[in-house]
Amino acid sequence: MDLKKYIADIPDFPEPGVLFRDVTPLLANKDAYHEAIRLLADFAKEKNVDIVVGPEARGFLFGCPVALSLECGFVPVRKPGKLPREVISQTYELEYGSNEIQMHSDSIQPGQNVLIVDDLLATGGTVEATISLIEKMGGNVVGIAFLIELEALKGRELLKDYDVFSVLKY
Amino acid sequence: MDLKKYIADIPDFPEPGVLFRDVTPLLANKDAYHEAIRLLADFAKEKNVDIVVGPEARGFLFGCPVALSLECGFVPVRKPGKLPREVISQTYELEYGSNEIQMHSDSIQPGQNVLIVDDLLATGGTVEATISLIEKMGGNVVGIAFLIELEALKGRELLKDYDVFSVLKY
Repeated sequence: MDLKKYIADIPDFPEPGVLFRDVTPLLANKDAYHEAIRLLADFAKEKNVDIVVGPEARGFLFGCPVALSLECGFVPVRKPGKLPREVISQTYELEYGSNEIQMHSDSIQPGQNVLIVDDLLATGGTVEATISLIEKMGGNVVGIAFLIELEALKGRELLKDYDVFSVLKY
Repeated sequence: MDLKKYIADIPDFPEPGVLFRDVTPLLANKDAYHEAIRLLADFAKEKNVDIVVGPEARGFLFGCPVALSLECGFVPVRKPGKLPREVISQTYELEYGSNEIQMHSDSIQPGQNVLIVDDLLATGGTVEATISLIEKMGGNVVGIAFLIELEALKGRELLKDYDVFSVLKY
């Protein structure tokens, strides 16, 4: 099944010069969406994953069904102000400015095997910050799975110590 | 299985006087999360659902796995500026101010049977706006399923023309 047929290429979104890969046609097609989830879960099924972690909001679209497929729970990574209990935070640099993400500080138990799932690997900033939070809590990142990898942005180099998988490479 | 054990009650979040129902302990527990998804999907399984719709971000946490369980696709409802193609928008009133949600304008086909899934029914403003967008595109809302219903806020009255289900009532 050619899943790239279900990714819409949108020039100049969200800003001029950026080619946005829109996953909404894939989500809307049951066969394409199921196949994508199957491939993401297959990557992880021999890794003894205890819990799946995904960043808001597009990471939820793939991470939650993968968690169910692997018979795991799910832990959300959120923007500041969204999680109601004690959090740990990580800031990371963007081309212009910086971003901050948070997780509940009791959301990963020491020694748990963690799979990170997100829609897109670009420069890798979000996932690097997510790894940092998971490791601060004592979790083992046993794999990182993306629907899409933008190879020219070399995010994989930032993640070279980890087992990284992507369903679709551009 | 008593799923309420996995909902954390957080007083005064996100503002004083509000009792926030935190679903993250449920998400993190595989048995509780799977049971919640099973109950949400069971509500809809005789409704010939063609597509599941869920508002960002917490609606994705439940809507996406329900879509997979029902062997359907998923359509996200998003805040302004997040969807890259042509959108339709709906504004709705809050206690102070207003909010706007968007869907891609081709995301529902006329005649499709639509299930809306969200984490929480409070006053019902978000779901009423979501129904309006779906119906503008010609979709039939065949059911609306929530993990949690806050009965005192009477959101169900706003939705009295629809088949509404909630897993947990408070």
